[in-house]
Amino acid sequence: MNGSFTYTPIGVFRTPYLTTQSIPKTLGEAPSADAVIEVDPAYADGLLDIEHFSHLLVLFAFHQSTARPLRVYPPGQTRERGVFATRSPHRPNAIGILTVELTRREGTRLFVRGVDVVDGTPVLDIKPYLTHFDCRPEATLGWIEGETSGGVTP
Amino acid sequence: MNGSFTYTPIGVFRTPYLTTQSIPKTLGEAPSADAVIEVDPAYADGLLDIEHFSHLLVLFAFHQSTARPLRVYPPGQTRERGVFATRSPHRPNAIGILTVELTRREGTRLFVRGVDVVDGTPVLDIKPYLTHFDCRPEATLGWIEGETSGGVTP
Repeated sequence: MNGSFTYTPIGVFRTPYLTTQSIPKTLGEAPSADAVIEVDPAYADGLLDIEHFSHLLVLFAFHQSTARPLRVYPPGQTRERGVFATRSPHRPNAIGILTVELTRREGTRLFVRGVDVVDGTPVLDIKPYLTHFDCRPEATLGWIEGETSGGVTP
Repeated sequence: MNGSFTYTPIGVFRTPYLTTQSIPKTLGEAPSADAVIEVDPAYADGLLDIEHFSHLLVLFAFHQSTARPLRVYPPGQTRERGVFATRSPHRPNAIGILTVELTRREGTRLFVRGVDVVDGTPVLDIKPYLTHFDCRPEATLGWIEGETSGGVTP
């Protein structure tokens, strides 16, 4: 499988959540918290023109996750699901994706909205959100359909 | 910045593109090619219930990319942009994201549509696409607005 790949963070999330336990888990709703992405000044040149986009995709490391189960019980659920059918932070390659709104940029600080990660989360990559690539309003919710009363995130 | 993170592929893309040069680059259009994700059988348990979702997010390594520029000229463009304001495969942490349609599953083989990566691309993670997390129809296209005649992908 082509060996392994090693990545060094380009920045860090500053968020209101000092512990993973304090992060709200809601099903069927996007996260809404404000946060700042502090990009390492060594990568400042890579931010040129990023402020022209309203939304960004952010890849990050679930750095506090150490478990690597293949099946998980999503919060509030009584049935196991394959980890690739969930957004669990505990997964073989513990990389997360967030779609955030970029509200403003101050130098290497990106002010964003829509975050549910713990303060200090290492950021691996930032990309512009492109609706024609990334937005699929017709997507169905799989096993989550009908589970929205559970109030949890898969 | 919390050290480095190492990830081992969980599978591989089988696509019609035997070289990166053969991949169509179109601006403002989603990729449309059919492909297969061959998941390593060691991770088969992680796929439980994934077939209930119509769309998936796939994280992969741009394994043929070795350049790490902070500014790039997107294809067909005459002005440099910061790499984080583009979807260039040549970036500090060369991880890609694709939103694909899952048309069917046969064991550890996922048949998907909407791929623009070279055959043999290592897959790092697969997640269900959740519209409330991942779909932002209101997102603006930043510097790409007005550039759609260029026929290229940023």
